[in-house]
Amino acid sequence: MKSFIKYPENSDFSIYNIPFGVGVFNKEYIACCSRIGDQVIDLATLYDYGFFDEIEGIDENVFEAFTLNEFIALGKPVTKAVRLKLQEILGENSKLAGDKKTIEECFYDFDKVQMMMPVHVPNYTDFYSSIEHATNVGKMFRDPENALLPNWKHLPVGYHGRASSIVVSGTEFHRPKGQTKPAGAENPIFGPCKQLDFELEMAFIVNKNTEMGDSISTAEAEDAIFGLVLFNDWSARDIQSWEYVPLGPFLGKNFCSTISPWVVTLEALKPFKTDSPKQEPEVLDYLKFEGLQNFDIHLQVYIQPENGKENLISKSNYKFMYWNMLQQLAHHTVNGCNVEVGDLYASGTISGSERSSFGSMLELTWRGTEPLKLSDGTERQFINDNDTVIMRGYAEKEGMRVGFGEVRGKVLAAKM
Amino acid sequence: MKSFIKYPENSDFSIYNIPFGVGVFNKEYIACCSRIGDQVIDLATLYDYGFFDEIEGIDENVFEAFTLNEFIALGKPVTKAVRLKLQEILGENSKLAGDKKTIEECFYDFDKVQMMMPVHVPNYTDFYSSIEHATNVGKMFRDPENALLPNWKHLPVGYHGRASSIVVSGTEFHRPKGQTKPAGAENPIFGPCKQLDFELEMAFIVNKNTEMGDSISTAEAEDAIFGLVLFNDWSARDIQSWEYVPLGPFLGKNFCSTISPWVVTLEALKPFKTDSPKQEPEVLDYLKFEGLQNFDIHLQVYIQPENGKENLISKSNYKFMYWNMLQQLAHHTVNGCNVEVGDLYASGTISGSERSSFGSMLELTWRGTEPLKLSDGTERQFINDNDTVIMRGYAEKEGMRVGFGEVRGKVLAAKM
Repeated sequence: MKSFIKYPENSDFSIYNIPFGVGVFNKEYIACCSRIGDQVIDLATLYDYGFFDEIEGIDENVFEAFTLNEFIALGKPVTKAVRLKLQEILGENSKLAGDKKTIEECFYDFDKVQMMMPVHVPNYTDFYSSIEHATNVGKMFRDPENALLPNWKHLPVGYHGRASSIVVSGTEFHRPKGQTKPAGAENPIFGPCKQLDFELEMAFIVNKNTEMGDSISTAEAEDAIFGLVLFNDWSARDIQSWEYVPLGPFLGKNFCSTISPWVVTLEALKPFKTDSPKQEPEVLDYLKFEGLQNFDIHLQVYIQPENGKENLISKSNYKFMYWNMLQQLAHHTVNGCNVEVGDLYASGTISGSERSSFGSMLELTWRGTEPLKLSDGTERQFINDNDTVIMRGYAEKEGMRVGFGEVRGKVLAAKM
Repeated sequence: MKSFIKYPENSDFSIYNIPFGVGVFNKEYIACCSRIGDQVIDLATLYDYGFFDEIEGIDENVFEAFTLNEFIALGKPVTKAVRLKLQEILGENSKLAGDKKTIEECFYDFDKVQMMMPVHVPNYTDFYSSIEHATNVGKMFRDPENALLPNWKHLPVGYHGRASSIVVSGTEFHRPKGQTKPAGAENPIFGPCKQLDFELEMAFIVNKNTEMGDSISTAEAEDAIFGLVLFNDWSARDIQSWEYVPLGPFLGKNFCSTISPWVVTLEALKPFKTDSPKQEPEVLDYLKFEGLQNFDIHLQVYIQPENGKENLISKSNYKFMYWNMLQQLAHHTVNGCNVEVGDLYASGTISGSERSSFGSMLELTWRGTEPLKLSDGTERQFINDNDTVIMRGYAEKEGMRVGFGEVRGKVLAAKM
């Protein structure tokens, strides 16, 4: 497949992708959009020009919304059809190629568009589904001999996170303050977090509302998942390690989480399905699934100091996940917990087995004991003020590339 | 103070109360409302009749909304003024007393109005702020000699809960299913929860949006709290005890939580302020507060079997809380976590020091080992299918009574 829009071979936004997001055009007009190469496509105006007339179930307001929620709530038959229609009209021999007026009205250079939160997130859950990450953390914080707790291989452990502080890539935030208990101290102290960390994650977005009492089986889950984003689950390790017993992470997490602006659909990712790690012991029936359900998505993390260069510090892959999305959603709803359109379900930190593939500073520096050296000669145990953390992700195969672009966040000094 | 509306001396909805809620009138018309005695007052129509004309900042749509969020977002100056105006026009010598047309149009018998969720809840957090409850649970699940974990007296431990499954009093729900590991079993099993429990709690509702990075101090917190509701944090103990390490409660909680329909304002509760338990060791500066900040609110829990009588099984009091609301909100935001209008912050189970004041079956039956006898001769270790659990709460002093009515929920058999 080729498009009349030219883009470099390594563009995340090839014609095989066709992601969805929400943008501010000309600094004032907000609409749902898609992207190819460096061009952002205003879907509301494209709708007005009749390009989606054949697709039943879309009304004129769907793309004029400030979030994708209304669009994705239309369900897979509609969202798939819109994506296929975009692929068709972006094709190299399409009529649109010669339609200068439409192109002028609907296509914008990506650097002229301010991307916003793609969805309103009613509920956010964070899983803990990488066995390498859970093992690393268990070794450091609990017992090196019994790093994985007894439940870990029987269910995808997860917890509820804070929806209000999920922000879009590019949002700066202040280093959190809080209560910590330094090693050896008798009493806790208050001050800026000293162990600010990122967590390399991906998150999926749900496209339906269910009733309380209903469940989504692993067989039904794919239809309920619109797509994925990159997710940085910022973590204050010193706050977290003091507060988290017995009820889990709280202020160590809820000050900020950052997502990428483009939601890549499950359909675009389908060619990159791959095998899962073997689950042993065998899981209970409600967690069993059919077919290839992991995804081969290359993930990278960079630290960029103020006025400095990007330093690649981790290369991981979404395929390392022990528990897949279908299992996560089936588990989450097996008790009758209802889901809502726009809900965000994050993977947990995605670490591989090699040190270079660990998905957090906690693991990369082994709790700060082995600092990372950056290209400017400085060292990092954790993240410094004015550092920017950038995560990128893409899948690639047989000349097709489908990527997420990036999720980027800069840490400002604590507000005192 | 007396009203021209007659109500019994023990009514929770005296002229000193004036709570707020959302009701369906005549099975079709939805509006924000208040209540006195057995009369529910349609505030939207009362607004149309000009009764709130003197109050600046309310527009005509505020009371026509399906939730109180817009109203409470107007802030204390407005919500206080509306409550005082209602108190004034409900007074025994007010003009309204003789205004038959308005009374006919705006006042409804409470059993003719279907109450709805009073607010849309964007974020929900559950604290763990009763020292008696935390101690009881610590004794049962961890170490009787060190029941309280080291952080407990230094910060109000809390965790994020699920907002989607918070429902209004009267909503029935199905017993959750899930994964549990019976004592002595080698592997977990799947099936309906066998240890379904309630938790007697109260929850406060926030009236403002803050920016990420900002905090609400204990001195500012009262202004940010609109009012309180009764809260039943339904819990599946067998699911919870297997899943909760290391990230906290998840499916053991998120299948359902129930709130009372009437939000009682902080202003109505002010006369019932009382002293707090002494906090020892001294807390960090950001958790210090001035004045009396606990509330003397009598709480009761009843179990009503199908077609049976109500059995009073617990009498507790909100004044037992070790950590108060101001401390909870200050702690929650000290790291820069932003809050949103309608956010719900629950207390955690409210237990007193006597067995008869414990706020959960877990504690009342000491993990099922000492079942409760009901008046129909049956016993309960936990909650059975078709049982209804009812919680009531009221404050009383010098002839004033301000109450919450009740929060009621019935458990149906698991959906198989």
